[in-house]
Amino acid sequence: CVSKCNYSEVSMAATFARLLLGRTSVLTAVMPKILTIRSLGDFSGLGKLNHVAIAVPDLEKATSLYRDVLQAPVSDVDLLPEHGVKVVFVNLPNTKIELLHPLGENSPISAFLEKNKSGGIHHICIEVENIKDAMGTLMAKNIRLLSEEPKIGAHGKPVVFCHPKDCGGVLLELEEL
Amino acid sequence: CVSKCNYSEVSMAATFARLLLGRTSVLTAVMPKILTIRSLGDFSGLGKLNHVAIAVPDLEKATSLYRDVLQAPVSDVDLLPEHGVKVVFVNLPNTKIELLHPLGENSPISAFLEKNKSGGIHHICIEVENIKDAMGTLMAKNIRLLSEEPKIGAHGKPVVFCHPKDCGGVLLELEEL
Repeated sequence: CVSKCNYSEVSMAATFARLLLGRTSVLTAVMPKILTIRSLGDFSGLGKLNHVAIAVPDLEKATSLYRDVLQAPVSDVDLLPEHGVKVVFVNLPNTKIELLHPLGENSPISAFLEKNKSGGIHHICIEVENIKDAMGTLMAKNIRLLSEEPKIGAHGKPVVFCHPKDCGGVLLELEEL
Repeated sequence: CVSKCNYSEVSMAATFARLLLGRTSVLTAVMPKILTIRSLGDFSGLGKLNHVAIAVPDLEKATSLYRDVLQAPVSDVDLLPEHGVKVVFVNLPNTKIELLHPLGENSPISAFLEKNKSGGIHHICIEVENIKDAMGTLMAKNIRLLSEEPKIGAHGKPVVFCHPKDCGGVLLELEEL
């Protein structure tokens, strides 16, 4: 409802009311409220596109496409068990493509690959200067986030994911640099 | 079959045989063969990520997300009837997001939006120095292309799309700069 929203105290109050009435504890509900109020106006906007993440059913085959056919420099395979993925980075002159393959039984990309047998673009990641400012601004404007606090992402930086239904169908990751 | 292919004269011959045996006329079959032979080894690899294209069901709503919430500079709406799309560009410091919405009855993204009601990432576009060198290399390595000749893309530059099934499920556009 981006275009219909009235970005005002009303939406802040609604956000807070939703948090208090939901299953969130008072303690965790207070933090987003503080963030929301502190951050309005502080968010400095989007930075660089950090990467485009592609979930692939065959990591070696996808790596070979970018390395051997398209002649881009690629990284070694990186195992990230805490994120449930194996990753290869394809380095382009201005950004990266991140090839993701499930690692372990509860990989967050297994369901995606079940639905998209040939693979597909899983998310895009854009840099922000301050993740909490970004989160506060997004929440105040009714963009749902997938976690109430930043998490440490695959690059060791704080990240948050935004709900695809509020972002034109796109899973949007914001990463603090 | 990227990882299994033997990138040799065998695959060139197979490509040529397939073209001759298929529905392609001898005239159009000759051109890819010439391209293939001329281009092996000439392709200089991938350049910058030119844009990520997102098909959206509501262009104003998506534009507002990037302009008003995420505070990125966005272009005016550009009507491209010859491509069947309306476009808004979101300018990031290192690349662009292209928001696509159908224009006219036979828009190439209508079917995509039928399947993806909330919208979604439609393709990524990567720059190459010479589109015919790139096409020759891709064809020689059995990556299917969606046209036998470059077309003039939305930015007035020669482009070609690669078959998603040969590219990890991703619709990959190559654009000559």
